[in-house]
Amino acid sequence: MLSYRRGLDAMPSYDGVEKNYRIKVNANESTMNLPPLVEERVLNRLASLAFNRYPNEEYYSLVEQIAKNFSVEPAQILLGGGSSEIIEKVFHAFGGAGQRVVFPQPSFSMYKIYAKAAESDGVPFDLDENFNLDVDAFISKVREVGASLAVVCNPNNPTGNALTPAQVEKIVVSIDCAFLLDEAYVEFYGRSAVNLVAKYPNLLVARTFSKAYGLAGARVGYMIAQAEVTRMVNKTFMPYHMNKLSLATADIVYQMRDEFVPRLQFIINERNRLAELLKNLRGVEVFPSETNFLLIRLERAEELKNHLESLDIGIRYFAPSAFGLKNCLRISIGTQIENDTVFAAIKNFLGD
Amino acid sequence: MLSYRRGLDAMPSYDGVEKNYRIKVNANESTMNLPPLVEERVLNRLASLAFNRYPNEEYYSLVEQIAKNFSVEPAQILLGGGSSEIIEKVFHAFGGAGQRVVFPQPSFSMYKIYAKAAESDGVPFDLDENFNLDVDAFISKVREVGASLAVVCNPNNPTGNALTPAQVEKIVVSIDCAFLLDEAYVEFYGRSAVNLVAKYPNLLVARTFSKAYGLAGARVGYMIAQAEVTRMVNKTFMPYHMNKLSLATADIVYQMRDEFVPRLQFIINERNRLAELLKNLRGVEVFPSETNFLLIRLERAEELKNHLESLDIGIRYFAPSAFGLKNCLRISIGTQIENDTVFAAIKNFLGD
Repeated sequence: MLSYRRGLDAMPSYDGVEKNYRIKVNANESTMNLPPLVEERVLNRLASLAFNRYPNEEYYSLVEQIAKNFSVEPAQILLGGGSSEIIEKVFHAFGGAGQRVVFPQPSFSMYKIYAKAAESDGVPFDLDENFNLDVDAFISKVREVGASLAVVCNPNNPTGNALTPAQVEKIVVSIDCAFLLDEAYVEFYGRSAVNLVAKYPNLLVARTFSKAYGLAGARVGYMIAQAEVTRMVNKTFMPYHMNKLSLATADIVYQMRDEFVPRLQFIINERNRLAELLKNLRGVEVFPSETNFLLIRLERAEELKNHLESLDIGIRYFAPSAFGLKNCLRISIGTQIENDTVFAAIKNFLGD
Repeated sequence: MLSYRRGLDAMPSYDGVEKNYRIKVNANESTMNLPPLVEERVLNRLASLAFNRYPNEEYYSLVEQIAKNFSVEPAQILLGGGSSEIIEKVFHAFGGAGQRVVFPQPSFSMYKIYAKAAESDGVPFDLDENFNLDVDAFISKVREVGASLAVVCNPNNPTGNALTPAQVEKIVVSIDCAFLLDEAYVEFYGRSAVNLVAKYPNLLVARTFSKAYGLAGARVGYMIAQAEVTRMVNKTFMPYHMNKLSLATADIVYQMRDEFVPRLQFIINERNRLAELLKNLRGVEVFPSETNFLLIRLERAEELKNHLESLDIGIRYFAPSAFGLKNCLRISIGTQIENDTVFAAIKNFLGD
């Protein structure tokens, strides 16, 4: 009888290959690969990599670029395997027996799991019926439970809405514990809180290359916080946790980030266009979005999801047990043709 | 005052860029990049990757290849970011307060750190003066302390010597707890214990692409164990912890692993040749090696290290505090020219 870590058996496993759809708009990925100019430079860079050497200066090269862009010190930046790993490690750093983590629900479903993996107590805080966060009540909750960490995804996944910078700042100043702001989708919103880091030692901002930069496959994210916080969170990362291929790729992508600006604008325009189209369908509620996806609610959500799957279109359906998301579907924004195809299929299904 | 995880402050940090040497034989990397044929196919594969999509089938494709090669089930394989991450996660899975991990010293210096990071107690077991492991005494120690996990690196880093398969099996059958066999260097030895996994539910074998396959930059390793053990350890990995670029690269490398056979033989020949040369130098003790490196001991080790550094040659020196490694240096095997250059520099330094 092997002696596993206490509680390990109760943890979930992540297995199984996800289905590949003709139109895959279920995971908030970019449906477009790298812009051709960027791809060319990435492949050139990969062609000159020393695969045989442990990653080294590649890590710091990317850190320095990011630091420069945000006018912070390199010591304020950490890189991780997507913002996922950043979040996992921040939860670990402020976790442990007796520590509490407060996060809104519905939000990124992994927060609950990361809390458990860090052996701390996850304390969900309910969004209202329109998925808005009552900031004052959230602050009270964080204080009341004596949390070591509060987390907000802004803009929020999977609801799409966002807190204003003033609301974010109000939370930061009103709580004493660490506050992790997950800005995975912030490029589609444009109102980051990174500038608040200089002022607040309890603010940690997580960002990712997976969404706006279309690098979900490379698993690169970063954290910005004050140097002392970064120093502490860094202790949870083992040496060589980042690989050289992804670092070199993200380095080029970040150098060429201006190439992504038209794309961002395109996604935002398409999101707004699709939202308007969907709003005109009877019985479809469309939630406001500051992201690269739309959340909609309609009576026959599960049936619609199955219908779209039968057409080889993958969108995100939420299990009835997912808090507040009954009859909700999440649709990532794709190319114009993809969005039109998805819309036509939904319209057709509804007989509208 | 932020409320960090208990014990986090005492953990070390891994910072700082490692120096790039003209001849870099300090990290047991391959000093040769991918074989040209392999590199070409890797780059072709990377050129057709969907960077924008989360890794998915790439993980299972590599798992299936490895499983097939070892005639085990895919459910017996886990992939990680180098064997480092495999080891980290196995320590976590069998760790926690009150759990004990026994490992030989001197060995891979990270075992101590991984034990601490897993919040368990590391229990080092001393190798003898020739760096041999007293198997019976080791078994007694593991039982005596009621360990949840025992770890052996075979062949051992940084000493180079190896246990026979019979010795490995003796340990496995004699202890009840989990036994992690770290086979990072086993391709240079040729005597893996993977075949024992079918028989022993407490055996976990960690392997890596970093050494024999020269992919240290890609961070890909794997674990082989019985399916139930794999299922449990898998719970410690978060979704999408592996990236698509490294997976695709390792997939091609593994398909083309025959291309590495001449290279392995070359490294082994060079290792034996360099060992003979060094043995002829007065005052230099050369330890037997089944790996891609040599451990030597001589009076003026630190001085020699500094001398080589002044020639832009990086070799591994061990701090006087490193158990049993006083006056020891570790030299990775490079190309013939690199090995000759290192040897000439040492010979010259010794005035031999």
